[in-house]
Amino acid sequence: MTKSLMEAAVLNKPFEIEVKKVSIPEPRDGEALVKVYCIGVCGSDVHYYEHGKIGRYVVEQSIILGHELAGDVVKVGKGVTNVSPGDRVAVEPGVPCGHCDYCKSGRYNLCPDVVFMATPPVDGAWAEYVTIRSDMLFKLPERMSYEEGALLEPLSVGFHAMNRGKVTPSDRVFVSGLGPIGLLAIQAAKMFGVTEIYASDVVPFRRQLAMEMGVTATIDPINEHLDERIKELTGGKGITVVIESSGNQRAISETVKLVNRGGRIVLVGMPVTNEIPLNINQLIDGEIDVYGLFRYANTYMPAIQALSKSNVNIEKVITHKFALSEIKEAVELARTEKETSIKVMIYPNKEKLEQ
Amino acid sequence: MTKSLMEAAVLNKPFEIEVKKVSIPEPRDGEALVKVYCIGVCGSDVHYYEHGKIGRYVVEQSIILGHELAGDVVKVGKGVTNVSPGDRVAVEPGVPCGHCDYCKSGRYNLCPDVVFMATPPVDGAWAEYVTIRSDMLFKLPERMSYEEGALLEPLSVGFHAMNRGKVTPSDRVFVSGLGPIGLLAIQAAKMFGVTEIYASDVVPFRRQLAMEMGVTATIDPINEHLDERIKELTGGKGITVVIESSGNQRAISETVKLVNRGGRIVLVGMPVTNEIPLNINQLIDGEIDVYGLFRYANTYMPAIQALSKSNVNIEKVITHKFALSEIKEAVELARTEKETSIKVMIYPNKEKLEQ
Amino acid sequence: MTKSLMEAAVLNKPFEIEVKKVSIPEPRDGEALVKVYCIGVCGSDVHYYEHGKIGRYVVEQSIILGHELAGDVVKVGKGVTNVSPGDRVAVEPGVPCGHCDYCKSGRYNLCPDVVFMATPPVDGAWAEYVTIRSDMLFKLPERMSYEEGALLEPLSVGFHAMNRGKVTPSDRVFVSGLGPIGLLAIQAAKMFGVTEIYASDVVPFRRQLAMEMGVTATIDPINEHLDERIKELTGGKGITVVIESSGNQRAISETVKLVNRGGRIVLVGMPVTNEIPLNINQLIDGEIDVYGLFRYANTYMPAIQALSKSNVNIEKVITHKFALSEIKEAVELARTEKETSIKVMIYPNKEKLEQ
Amino acid sequence: MTKSLMEAAVLNKPFEIEVKKVSIPEPRDGEALVKVYCIGVCGSDVHYYEHGKIGRYVVEQSIILGHELAGDVVKVGKGVTNVSPGDRVAVEPGVPCGHCDYCKSGRYNLCPDVVFMATPPVDGAWAEYVTIRSDMLFKLPERMSYEEGALLEPLSVGFHAMNRGKVTPSDRVFVSGLGPIGLLAIQAAKMFGVTEIYASDVVPFRRQLAMEMGVTATIDPINEHLDERIKELTGGKGITVVIESSGNQRAISETVKLVNRGGRIVLVGMPVTNEIPLNINQLIDGEIDVYGLFRYANTYMPAIQALSKSNVNIEKVITHKFALSEIKEAVELARTEKETSIKVMIYPNKEKLEQ
Repeated sequence: MTKSLMEAAVLNKPFEIEVKKVSIPEPRDGEALVKVYCIGVCGSDVHYYEHGKIGRYVVEQSIILGHELAGDVVKVGKGVTNVSPGDRVAVEPGVPCGHCDYCKSGRYNLCPDVVFMATPPVDGAWAEYVTIRSDMLFKLPERMSYEEGALLEPLSVGFHAMNRGKVTPSDRVFVSGLGPIGLLAIQAAKMFGVTEIYASDVVPFRRQLAMEMGVTATIDPINEHLDERIKELTGGKGITVVIESSGNQRAISETVKLVNRGGRIVLVGMPVTNEIPLNINQLIDGEIDVYGLFRYANTYMPAIQALSKSNVNIEKVITHKFALSEIKEAVELARTEKETSIKVMIYPNKEKLEQ
Repeated sequence: MTKSLMEAAVLNKPFEIEVKKVSIPEPRDGEALVKVYCIGVCGSDVHYYEHGKIGRYVVEQSIILGHELAGDVVKVGKGVTNVSPGDRVAVEPGVPCGHCDYCKSGRYNLCPDVVFMATPPVDGAWAEYVTIRSDMLFKLPERMSYEEGALLEPLSVGFHAMNRGKVTPSDRVFVSGLGPIGLLAIQAAKMFGVTEIYASDVVPFRRQLAMEMGVTATIDPINEHLDERIKELTGGKGITVVIESSGNQRAISETVKLVNRGGRIVLVGMPVTNEIPLNINQLIDGEIDVYGLFRYANTYMPAIQALSKSNVNIEKVITHKFALSEIKEAVELARTEKETSIKVMIYPNKEKLEQ
Repeated sequence: MTKSLMEAAVLNKPFEIEVKKVSIPEPRDGEALVKVYCIGVCGSDVHYYEHGKIGRYVVEQSIILGHELAGDVVKVGKGVTNVSPGDRVAVEPGVPCGHCDYCKSGRYNLCPDVVFMATPPVDGAWAEYVTIRSDMLFKLPERMSYEEGALLEPLSVGFHAMNRGKVTPSDRVFVSGLGPIGLLAIQAAKMFGVTEIYASDVVPFRRQLAMEMGVTATIDPINEHLDERIKELTGGKGITVVIESSGNQRAISETVKLVNRGGRIVLVGMPVTNEIPLNINQLIDGEIDVYGLFRYANTYMPAIQALSKSNVNIEKVITHKFALSEIKEAVELARTEKETSIKVMIYPNKEKLEQ
Repeated sequence: MTKSLMEAAVLNKPFEIEVKKVSIPEPRDGEALVKVYCIGVCGSDVHYYEHGKIGRYVVEQSIILGHELAGDVVKVGKGVTNVSPGDRVAVEPGVPCGHCDYCKSGRYNLCPDVVFMATPPVDGAWAEYVTIRSDMLFKLPERMSYEEGALLEPLSVGFHAMNRGKVTPSDRVFVSGLGPIGLLAIQAAKMFGVTEIYASDVVPFRRQLAMEMGVTATIDPINEHLDERIKELTGGKGITVVIESSGNQRAISETVKLVNRGGRIVLVGMPVTNEIPLNINQLIDGEIDVYGLFRYANTYMPAIQALSKSNVNIEKVITHKFALSEIKEAVELARTEKETSIKVMIYPNKEKLEQ
């Protein structure tokens, strides 16, 4: 590889994204260089594109976005033994420090010093190449596609939701919000052996996709009475675990009313407003558990294992594919076409798009 | 025992409580008759006295209140083997069905068919005698007083809070609200080996009592800045578990802000308003756990064991003692003197009061 | 139902089993009378038939064996509300007391006062009818057969093994011993989302059946090197959970060597000899967990739920079917034909056999 | 600090240990240099001294032993922010890689690439100075002595045993073997709020020390009947958790017989023989958990917190103190005087010994 420049999509300020030549990064000790074949557009990418910030993270200088990716290892730094050039890999995009109390106790997703792709000021991977510490790379089995590899990132959120919610086949699960996270949480629930999964979203296309992806039934939260419908669908047995991935204020408030006494609620979707009212008396009377969820930890390897041998089809969430040169169009589509698009994929190395 | 009538405090309607003669109940198969020596006035008793209802539970006919008690077994029904006449016992006041899914899975506090003393229409034990299924009786070791036996009920809530919150000596605990439940949750935390316990209440007398009962430090939530004070007191390490026992809206909302990332919140105190705003984004970003708590399960035996060998003094929460004949005065005091009273105790069999 | 006598298979002493007329039991308060349509022959039944005892349980008087059953409710005692005559039900055969510490803490399988069918001196259900406390009955969904209903009992052991072993889709599971319990533990693992399941047994027929029932690979423990084969099959990643259901001494000893560091072992199969050597240094060095398993608790409802919506086929373990009148032949076959039989089913009401 | 040589105790081969001048190590990036004030003689040190190996770890070249230590930070490498020169610190002696699956999931004690002091070929700290990655250093509160700091290492094993055994105040704990690990496991149990702790050892001095350190009662396993004595002492309630720290074959075998049904056994002491017979039928029938324990993880910070505010006195286990120049004498004493010595401490910088 003698090439020294690559194409990358650089966000200069809100709405100003351009594809330009930048240096190909060089893997340092313990790092690998990955040729990026498939990388998703995430809601957070779109949010930075629109608003230039998310909460305490602010885009103060030009940044490369993108953090849901798979590709090939093309070069490794000194001391790398777990991967070699030529390996097809998925990339876990947040590198934890490994030394703090959170890291040492198995919750590295809470590491205060994590270096997470596409979280300002850390560059992401909407680019032909990217480097990362090699322990964040996971080899893809032969029968797993780059698309599946890239989707491991949002799937990991669903997988982590199952772990947080202590979900087992004994549960009856309700998923509110059927964007990529909600739909992949459904797939995660199926991987965990859940056989009764109910789901709601205001968008008909999303409910239909959820049906195709195997939920037991969907509910239209506008035109149907959620509570009564759940009772009816479960034969009165009710819901034991709610996965809230819509971020919608009303949906969040309703989780407490929806779940059985002794049930569990996993909150995934971040609302626009910070303060959301919950019925605390019902939460206490029902001895309900509410678990916040932030990213994921220790999910890539088990998700690959579960995915490679199951007949769950996660690629159904991909609704659009673009070359890196079309990044502006891709992000605009993700931003505006919420009724018809779920996951938009970018192919920085065009040959894979054309396959 | 040839006597067939006993004195009992009967609530006819809000504010109308009278001590009158009623029949001494007869223990049925599997039940025991307990002579009540010491029984507390609980916040819920006061609430029924004032309002005639709590949530879905409504006083529709005359009822005997009271459910925090200890006494002597005086008679047993057929098939009772675990206690005998003469045994000093604490009484766990809620009899679960033993057959439903909640009971069978160890969460009998959520049993929909539980028969719980002093929860309409079930009579409680502000009376000379009471019957109960004998497996709800727990023998008191010699060195444990009837007062301690009666306090096992509110202490159980604290004990259960430790179980719900998975509290270990690794934790730094904050307790908000220093009524009987909060103060006894502090004692439970000490029993669980917690060495850093912080507590807040608006009433100076309660904070002082908390200090006497062994907290590390107290905070005045009105005149001090809670967040900063916690940071200062813990050397920046922060709180890992919050036990919310005040039921105060602002205190409930603040739990999310107070606890560390990855921390746990146990909600015990029921607020006047159902809907309380929580900062959901912080809850998600911090991957916080919130646990509702409803009564307790499987706490009496371990609490007796822990209490009988520890040097924790729980009787300090008792601020007033009354004979059953003074019940009106006792309840009025508990209702109105919140600045100076914590736990008011009733002695239905006067000889013990006079000891 | 005016009939007052029924046929039942009575074991008088080892090897002496006869079908004779006995009284149809009458359901007491809280009980239901079940017409038995399908009931398995369990290893323990065979053992009582041969030896007249298992450990501390000794057949001292005539006994009716059999405890894996499904049928129809035909009559209910006073106070029964969860089932009605005509309901198709599976029967959980061990009735716990509901009052002891084990029951109250969710481990009712350890209840010292459990009344368990076909465990001397309690009669089982190799008979046309049987009574049981109605909370031990679980309605079968329409699409579930009586055979599946009867198999819920041994499947429950597998389900409980998953709970004891905290099995999730992240695990790679090894099952040793492919009798009914091992084969159904494999199905339970599949229900829990496990995608890599390895299994061994000395009998080729059983290994073949395991393949048909969906394991990843089987190993012949006599002619193959277990350790090396596992390494090869898992690509060096090894086994995280072992389910030992053979009861074979060598297999039990090998579990510690087979499992990864940090792994879990669930011991299900009871060996002929009590004392079995384990490599304690390896168990300590690897920080391995070993969990004994005794029967099951809280498994029927979730197993019905998981089974009714999954495509797992558990009936494949049924190799032979007999009328109650052929009980001697059935038990002898189960006792002697271990190379070709797995689960033998009895049909006390012949009409169902003929269907 | 211009000095470049320091004294260190070097083991050349079994029984050949000499104190000689070696280079003071230089802290690399992320490391700190610690002046060692107090360091224990561990059973493993003695074992290497006698046999030149422990299991798969073999002393093939000269090695400095010792890994239980506290001292002062005197110099820090680049990038160190958690400690500064002058800080009094305890040293956690095993540095995990931070990148493997075990590390990432919170079980870094199982890290295959851990660099553990005094485990061949890694040098330990029987020396005036030692370097280590700075996140393994934990500041000592003012009122905590260097001796306590050094004892945090063996105490951590006890603390980890409590975590592994899920010990709470509800438990009744039995500790077998009263060397430093057993005695400090008792202190850990007290820190976890356990009020009933029973202990056994063949050596009277050790039993007496256990009494002084707060156990409920001790048992002489030679002259008393363990089972009956336990029954008597617990009023028939029995033991819920056994901590086996003797490594004695008979004691290990007896754990299964000693613990209640549903109980837990933590195996800590490594036996001379690998294969130890356990009563597997009893383990299964009692649904007992057995947990191997290897070192510890995430214990230093909580142990410091618990220790600094409790009135537990762990220094009682120190029976002898030596200067580094007396190392041979110290190790010989630890090796031979098992009836009278528990923990022997070395003071490489003599000034602290003389204080």
